Amino acid sequence: MPNDDKKWMNLALLEAFRSKGSTGQNPPVGCVIVKNNIFISSGRTSFSGRPHAEENALNKVLDKKVLLNASIYVTLEPCSHKNTNGKSCADLIIESGISEVFISCVDPDPRTNGKSINLFKKNNIKVHSKYMEKDALDIYDGFFSRLHNNKPFVTLKIACSLDGKIALKNKKSKWITNELSRRSTHFIRAQNDAILTSSSTIITDNPMLNCRLEGMENRSPAIVILDRYLKLNSSYKIFQDNINNDIYLYSLNDSSNHLNKLSNIKKIMVNKDLNNKEFFNFIFRDLCNKGINNLLIESGSKLSTILLSLNMVDKLIIFRSGKIIGNDGLPFINDLNHKDIEQLKKYQISFLRILDDDVLEIRNHSNEA
Amino acid sequence: MPNDDKKWMNLALLEAFRSKGSTGQNPPVGCVIVKNNIFISSGRTSFSGRPHAEENALNKVLDKKVLLNASIYVTLEPCSHKNTNGKSCADLIIESGISEVFISCVDPDPRTNGKSINLFKKNNIKVHSKYMEKDALDIYDGFFSRLHNNKPFVTLKIACSLDGKIALKNKKSKWITNELSRRSTHFIRAQNDAILTSSSTIITDNPMLNCRLEGMENRSPAIVILDRYLKLNSSYKIFQDNINNDIYLYSLNDSSNHLNKLSNIKKIMVNKDLNNKEFFNFIFRDLCNKGINNLLIESGSKLSTILLSLNMVDKLIIFRSGKIIGNDGLPFINDLNHKDIEQLKKYQISFLRILDDDVLEIRNHSNEA
Repeated sequence: MPNDDKKWMNLALLEAFRSKGSTGQNPPVGCVIVKNNIFISSGRTSFSGRPHAEENALNKVLDKKVLLNASIYVTLEPCSHKNTNGKSCADLIIESGISEVFISCVDPDPRTNGKSINLFKKNNIKVHSKYMEKDALDIYDGFFSRLHNNKPFVTLKIACSLDGKIALKNKKSKWITNELSRRSTHFIRAQNDAILTSSSTIITDNPMLNCRLEGMENRSPAIVILDRYLKLNSSYKIFQDNINNDIYLYSLNDSSNHLNKLSNIKKIMVNKDLNNKEFFNFIFRDLCNKGINNLLIESGSKLSTILLSLNMVDKLIIFRSGKIIGNDGLPFINDLNHKDIEQLKKYQISFLRILDDDVLEIRNHSNEA
Repeated sequence: MPNDDKKWMNLALLEAFRSKGSTGQNPPVGCVIVKNNIFISSGRTSFSGRPHAEENALNKVLDKKVLLNASIYVTLEPCSHKNTNGKSCADLIIESGISEVFISCVDPDPRTNGKSINLFKKNNIKVHSKYMEKDALDIYDGFFSRLHNNKPFVTLKIACSLDGKIALKNKKSKWITNELSRRSTHFIRAQNDAILTSSSTIITDNPMLNCRLEGMENRSPAIVILDRYLKLNSSYKIFQDNINNDIYLYSLNDSSNHLNKLSNIKKIMVNKDLNNKEFFNFIFRDLCNKGINNLLIESGSKLSTILLSLNMVDKLIIFRSGKIIGNDGLPFINDLNHKDIEQLKKYQISFLRILDDDVLEIRNHSNEA
C-alpha cells in the first residue's frame, strides 16, 4: 500500500507551524511517524527549543518495536549534534529502526548541513531529501534569513483605513480595523520572536505589544525598542506588561536612567556616527546573535519608511478596513519622492482574505524591484 | 421530476447580467424557458432595450406547441405595457400556453408594478414572485436607484498603489495597476450606461474612457463631462474616440465654442448659484431623465472627495497594486478633517479577488454610517 506521503508531510508542516515563534533561536520543526500508512506519532519543537521534534515524537511511542521499518516525515533535516540525552536526533532515528526518512529542508546550520542525510544513507535508511521543500519556506523564513543573511526576517504589520491611513490627523486610531483583525495581530505576534518599535510610538500610543489571546499568553515575543535619546521611563505599559519577556533597548545615550532597575531590560549602546543603513544593520546583526529569527515591526510611519526605503522589509501584513479617513490622516508610509513608476518598490501578493468586513493582505518583497 | 428552479433562475440572472449597461433606459432582463426540467430557450434584453428578453426567448422556439405547460424564469416581472409587436410580454406569455412563471423582482415601473403578476393569476398561471430576489439586486441597482431615488447608481472606480495613491507627485500614473486590472476596467465601463469625468481629468490625462475590449467596442457608455468654465476643445481624445456615443457636457457657461459643432455633444447649462449638493442633484436628476441607470465615475480626487462627502457614491471598485508610491503621491481622496473614528464613512465589502498581482476590492455604501 503506498503511503500518503504528501498528507503526512503536510501534517508535519502544520506541527512545525504551530511552534513557530516559540522555539527561541532553534528552528521550529514538525515530525510525523507513520507505519504501513497508519499514523503512529507526531511531535514538534518544544517551547524554547528543547527537546527537538523528533525526540518528542519518538518518546510518545510506548512500544518501540512498532518503529521497526516505520517512516518518519520531518520538516527540517534532523540534527547531527548532540541532544539533551547525549544523542543527536539522527542517532535516535537510526537506533529506532526507522527505515525511511522524508526531509523537507536541509538544515543550513553547519553542525548538521547534510551530515545527517549522509549518516542515514550509510545506515541503509531510504532518504527523500528536499521533499515538499517549497511548502516549508514560510516556516523557515526567519531561521534561513538569520543563518544566510545575518538578518532576522522582517515583517511590517500595518492596520489602516481603506485609503491607507493609520490614524486621524489628531493621532486617534482606536479602532480603524475590527476586532478580528486585532485578534489576528496577536496571533502574528506569537509567530515572531521579537517586536520592534520606537520610543515615539510608545509615547504616542502606549501599547502593550504582547500576545493576549487566551491560552497563548506565554507566546508573547521579546520587545525591541529604539530609544536613541532615552526618552522612556518605566511608567509605560510596555514595561509593565512584559515583565516575563526580554526587552532590548537600543540607544545612543549611555547615561543610566531608572529603566536600568528593571531586570528584564537589556540596554545596548549604538555608535552615534552610524547612518540609517549602518544603524539597522548593527541592530539586526545584534538581534541575530541573540537568536531572533523573526522580527515584527509595529511602529509608526517614520520607522516603516526608513526600513522600506532600505529594502529591509521582507513581508507586509496589512489589515485594511472599509473606513475612509481622508488625506489629512497619518499615512503608513511617508514621502518617497519617486519620479517614475518604474522606480517603485513592489511587493508580491501571497495571501488575501476577508476578516469580517476588513481585508487581510499579505505581500512579500519582490526580488524584481 | 422536480425542476431545478434555482439553477434555471441563475441562468436567467446570467443572461440579464450580460446585457447590463447595453439596454438604454430599459432594465436588463434575463429569461429562461424550461419544460419537464429540460432547457427550451433563453433570451435577454436586446441592445438599446427592444425587443424584451421574453419576446427574444419565445421567438427562438420554432415549435410553439412545446410551450404548452412549460415554465418561464424571468429576472424582472414581465411588462404589462405594449411591446414592439403591439403586445405586452405578459400577453405573449399567456398566449404561449406557459403555465408557471418564476419572477425574481417585481417591476417598480408604474406601468407594470404587479399588474402582470395579477394577470397571470387570473389566467390560472402559477406565479412564484420574489423568487431569488436578492440575487437580482446587483443587476437592478441602477434601474431601482433611478426609479426610486431619481439618481443613477453611482460607482466610483479607483486604480491605486498599495498605499492608496493614484499618481506620483508629478502626476505620472502609467501604469500603477497591471494589464488585467485595466482590462477589467473596460468590462466595468461596458456595464455602465455612462461615465462621469471632469475637464481637469481630461486636460491632465487625456483619457479615451471607452470600452476597447475586442468584440465589445459597441458597449462603450455615454460620456458625461463637468466643464464648468468650458475649458475643453475638440482636440482631446475623449471627443475623437467617442463619436458614436452621446456626450453630455454640463457647464455654467452658456457661450458657444467650437465643441458645439460636434453633433454627438449635448451641452446642458447649470445654474451657477447652486452649491455642490444642489449641483450634483441637478445633474443626477437630469441623467435619470436621459435614462442613465448606472453611472461610473472615472476622475481625480477632487470629484471623488465631493461625491463621497455628499454620500452620493453607492459603490467603490478599487484596483490596488503591490507598488508603493509614498505620501507625496496624489491620493484617491483629499482631506476630510475628521475628528473621531466614529464619524468615518464605511463601505462594506462585497467582492475580493486577486487579479494577477493586483487586488480587486468592491465595497458598497453602508447604511450604518
